[in-house]
Formats: sequence, C-alpha cells, structure tokens
Amino acid sequence: MITKPKGFLAAGISCGIKKSGKKDLALIFSKTSALAYGVFTANKVKAVPLLISAQHLRKGRARAVIINSGNANCYTGKQGLKDAKKIISLAARKLGIKTTEVLAASTGIIGKQLPMKKILPAIKPVCSKLSKSGGVDAAKAIQTTDKFLKQAAKSFKIGKKTVSIGAMAKGAGMIFPNLTPLGKNATMLCFITSDALIEFSALKKALDLSVEQSFDAITVDGCMSTNDMVLILANGEAKNKKIKLSSREFNMFRTALSNICQDLAKKIILDAEGATKFIKINIKGAKSIALAKKCAFSIANSPLFKTACFGENRNIGRVISAIGAVGVSLDENKTKINLSSLKKKNIFLNVDLKQGKSNTTVYTCDLSPEYIKINAGYS
Amino acid sequence: MITKPKGFLAAGISCGIKKSGKKDLALIFSKTSALAYGVFTANKVKAVPLLISAQHLRKGRARAVIINSGNANCYTGKQGLKDAKKIISLAARKLGIKTTEVLAASTGIIGKQLPMKKILPAIKPVCSKLSKSGGVDAAKAIQTTDKFLKQAAKSFKIGKKTVSIGAMAKGAGMIFPNLTPLGKNATMLCFITSDALIEFSALKKALDLSVEQSFDAITVDGCMSTNDMVLILANGEAKNKKIKLSSREFNMFRTALSNICQDLAKKIILDAEGATKFIKINIKGAKSIALAKKCAFSIANSPLFKTACFGENRNIGRVISAIGAVGVSLDENKTKINLSSLKKKNIFLNVDLKQGKSNTTVYTCDLSPEYIKINAGYS
Repeated sequence: MITKPKGFLAAGISCGIKKSGKKDLALIFSKTSALAYGVFTANKVKAVPLLISAQHLRKGRARAVIINSGNANCYTGKQGLKDAKKIISLAARKLGIKTTEVLAASTGIIGKQLPMKKILPAIKPVCSKLSKSGGVDAAKAIQTTDKFLKQAAKSFKIGKKTVSIGAMAKGAGMIFPNLTPLGKNATMLCFITSDALIEFSALKKALDLSVEQSFDAITVDGCMSTNDMVLILANGEAKNKKIKLSSREFNMFRTALSNICQDLAKKIILDAEGATKFIKINIKGAKSIALAKKCAFSIANSPLFKTACFGENRNIGRVISAIGAVGVSLDENKTKINLSSLKKKNIFLNVDLKQGKSNTTVYTCDLSPEYIKINAGYS
Repeated sequence: MITKPKGFLAAGISCGIKKSGKKDLALIFSKTSALAYGVFTANKVKAVPLLISAQHLRKGRARAVIINSGNANCYTGKQGLKDAKKIISLAARKLGIKTTEVLAASTGIIGKQLPMKKILPAIKPVCSKLSKSGGVDAAKAIQTTDKFLKQAAKSFKIGKKTVSIGAMAKGAGMIFPNLTPLGKNATMLCFITSDALIEFSALKKALDLSVEQSFDAITVDGCMSTNDMVLILANGEAKNKKIKLSSREFNMFRTALSNICQDLAKKIILDAEGATKFIKINIKGAKSIALAKKCAFSIANSPLFKTACFGENRNIGRVISAIGAVGVSLDENKTKINLSSLKKKNIFLNVDLKQGKSNTTVYTCDLSPEYIKINAGYS
C-alpha cells in the first residue's frame, strides 16, 4: 500500500541480519523529488539513523527511505554513524540521487554494530527490486516481533484529481511512542507516501496532528524506544490543486492522514506482544490535556490494571490508585468510572473526573504471560 | 519482634474479612504514652485510615495501632470514614485510652466498604489477646499476598540502658512507595516500636532518613498504592539518656532504624509477587539525586528490563532506552554500564553516567508469569 500513491516504488529483501532468514531490508523510492517531513522519538538516546534522517530532513525534501530490521544501530558510537552513512551513500549512488535525499531507519537490538558484510552487498539487489508491487515485501522487511502486516491507504478527490496516501508500520513491543519534531522511541516505525501536491507547512501540520491522536496515544508496555519514527513523503504526482493550510483540501488531506495513522496505531495495539485484549481508555473532564494524558497513561501502563484485564478480574481500585499516583485526586461522589465487560476482546474504560473540560483517548492492551515469554527470550 | 521493645504488646486474629480464614486483624499497644510519627503514600487518593492517622499524629503521641488486611478502606466515601472512626473509638474504649491515641491502617481491595459486622465483634477479642508473645500473630494478620513474615529488631546500649527497636512489615505487590510526611501507596505497611527515650524532632528525622533509603528505594511493579504507611511509636521505657538530634546517640538510633527499614524493604523485594530475582541498581555520576532516581526507577520499572532478568537474557539496550526515556543522555565513550550475571538470584546493575556527583541505589525484582497469575486472579 506504500506504493499506492503515484510515482512510488518499494522493495523488501532478506540480507541475513535476521538469523531466521526473514526479510530485513526495505526500500521506498519516489521517482520524482518529494517533500519530506518526520517525527522522532523523544528518547534522549536516539539511534543513528534518526540523527542522520533528521539532518537530511532539514532541506524538507527526500526521495528514498532505506530501512533495516534486526538491528537498531543505536548506542553504536562513531562506527554506527560511519556505517549508516556508508549504507545511505551507496543507496544514493545506486538510485542516482543525492545522499541528502535518502532517509534511513532501523529497528532491532540496541547496542550492537550493524552486520555491514551482510547489508552492503544487499543494497544493489534491493535497489534493482524496486517495483510498484513491492509494497508488501517492504512491509514484511520492517517487522520484528510483529505477527501481521500493518498497512493502510486512503484516496480522495480534489477536483478531478485523485490524491492517495499509502502507509506501512511495524511495532509490537517497546511501544510507548512520544514523537516530536525531533522527538521519540518504541520501536514503532511508520512510513507514509502520498502523491499529493501540498505546501510543506500543511504537510507538517497534518502529520503532527495525526501523530498526536494515533501513535502518541498508544502504549504497549510503557517502554519508550530509541528508534521510533514516522516519515512522510509527498511527491505531488497527483497534480492536484496545491493543498494549503486552512483550506477545505487541507481538512480532506488531514482527515485521510489521521485515519491512516489511527488505523496503523490500532493495528500495533492489536498485534501487541502477547496481547489478548484491545483496551480504549477515555479520560474526560480533566483540568488540562496534560493531566488527562497523565491519568490515561498511568492506567494504561499499570501492570496491575493490565493483568486484571488479562485475567478478566474486575478491579476498579487499580484504576483509582493509578490516577492518584500521578497526583490527580478523585471525589467518590462526583467521579464517574465506567469499565465495560472484561469478558470481551474489546474493552473500554471511561473516567469522567468532572474537574475541567479536557478529554483524551489512549489505546493499550493487557499484559499476559506471553509478553514475558516473548521478551524473556528476545535478544 | 514488634513486641521486643519494653512496654509493647501485640495481637493478631482472624475476624473473617479474608475468606481463607487467615488472620486479618492486628493490634499493637504501648502500655504507656508514646511519641508517634508516620509517613504516608504520596498518592492523591489516600485510604481513610491514613487520613485519620495523619490527623491523630498531629499531637505527636499515640498508644495503639489497629490494622486490618483484606480490605483497603479506600475510595469508600463518608461510609468508610464513619466505619474507621467506629473501629477506632471502640478500640480506644476497650483499651481505656483516648480515641486520638489510636492509629489505624488497612490493606486489601480498594473501593469496597469494610465488612463491619465481622470487624466490630472482633475488637474486644483482639484487645484481650494483647500479649508480649503476640508479635508473630500481628505480623501474620497484616499480610495479603505475602509468602513469608517480615519482621526485624535491633538493640543497642546507651550507657547501661538497652534500647530496642522492633518492626513488622507487609507487602509483595502494588509496591512503588513514595512516602512523605503526608505522602504515599503500594500497599506496603510497616509498623515500628521502640522503647527509646527520644526527642520528637530526632524521631522524625531518623524515620525520614531511614525511609528514603529503604521503602522509598524499592519498586516491585511501579504501582503506587493508596494505603502505604510507615508508623513509629517510641515510649521511652528504656529510660535511657534522652536521644537528641546531632548527638552520638542519635546516630546509633538512626543507624539501627535504617538497618531495620532496609532489612524489611529488601524482604518485600525478596517476597515480591512472582519474583525469581533480587536486583540492585546503582546509578552513579548523575547531575542530581532526582535524575539519578529517575534513571534508576525507569530501569527498575521497565517491563522489558524485568522480563530480560527473568529470562536471563542479557540485553543492555533495555537499560539504555530506559535511561534515555527519562531525558538523560548517554555517551557511548564515557558511560560505564556493568550488569552482573543474570544466571544468579542476586543481580546488580551499575551505571556510571559520569555527568555529575549524585548517586542512588534502588532495589527491584524481575517480572515473571507468576506475577501475572497472582494479579490476574486477585480481587
């Protein structure tokens, strides 16, 4: 689906980083120059490809994204930086574009050097495999502990022109994104392509707003990654009337992008490591959005609340204590707490604090023995 | 051991709050008036007995502590307050002391009213059972998911007088205490008695310092309770030369008290729900104590770090990402990370950030499927 918008190609191959032999190297390519923008983990320890991509994004344009799974290239020092630059410059040469037009992402184990002997010889093959049908292979190649593919696409009309947005994401554990313009880490990765002709400020605003209500509203385990990123490329090949901020067209683009991001964020929660429940937490009536989010994530990250959901063991006390733990008081006579049946796969928790006018919604999952099994073994 | 100091009696009985028939009502009593001080959970939602005890402690004196397990008497509104007051006043009458001389504590399920029909008829029996040998029964009666008794005692000489401190604690889950003069929640409870003759300011200082390096330095699951408290009663029956702040005697008292608190805090971690590992985390060279603690607890509360310890799966990346997640950067060339063998029951992690002069130590445990089993079923 990443190749749905006009002018985008993709590929995904196995180069041997993963011992399983599964695909581990993906490439996205725009035939023409594209506007580019991205948000990154707020973790103070940022993986090497994030630092390079953030630097390349200063120009606001890019044409390719090269992604490896199986190794995070994080906490790898000067060697890691040198290696990532080598991969990027080789890809740029093979694709016939500038080095600064290539962005990079990685996901996998932290603190180990990239296996360059496996990656370098694979750059030419992955470039030559680029195709309109390569989206699924690319989506497969960015996965780690994911159990299913995470893709989404939307189209809408501007006049007689069809504008499309395509996207792929990965993520199942170490998921508590907090993405900022040079922001966060899970690892969740999301790559979005569009053939929309759009102003940079409108592209940026649309992504920032979409991320806030999607990837920044999910948590699996409360562990912020060093590698989270969301990138968007828009090449204008739809040749639509240019989308500007505050126009009707902007709202159409923004709505489509928000739907895609929410769809993919929910897919991450549905595929969360060991999860058996999909939990939606609504906090209403908080004094501020910040406090509403604090409450929501305190509950969503509470091992006690999560295990209670897993065990279908109704225990409102764990909601109450999680709210109080972040400094928000409750009034037994005013606060309304509504927890749906735990017997179902989809659970919702509504808390109306009745202290103010701020609301928020976050999505999370339960904590099961399977999560422990997966993470006790992963390395 | 709570009855080791002169002039203290205790008792513990079953009154039927726990369906298992296990002991669930404890009483500690000083034959003479005692100085009293306590610290409570920082959770904004505080259980009823904490609010009453804090009020009674304003006078700085108390003679009895009545504790029930099986019900937290938290988020129980006016009824909960009325019930706790009824229990306290009945106990005061049976003991022949003032209502304000009775402190109270509860631990168990949050959000349910106390089963008063079971508790009220048990007040007289528990008062009449008070004895010098009742310490063990009392220690049993405050337990919930604990697997072993948590008691400690120390004695030291001031001149020819022997001064003793005795204590009992409970706690295994919902353990992330943050105790302040009207502070925190886990539930961990600790009750300390002493026959020391001591100034109030010295008693307060000794407890505050001891708690900071013990109960405030542990976490099982990052979940702060609504019911945590540590209470100390000192009745002066040792008839020692009065202990004053900054005296040599103060250091003796403080050291003994610190040892007791650390002993009990470590016992809570050793008995943590489902734990198979005892983990000591040292953060050195932080820019401030606050940042050192943030780093230490971010690691200690990371489900990924904890499951890695459970699985004996060495993964330094999870330490690195947990530090970066709280806004502290690392330098691959300076930071020293030393993680001991995960094959042993006792694990230590030393991180030297080399950014400043502040150090801290916290204690935690691994996260196992057994923790989930315990908490998926508990209600």
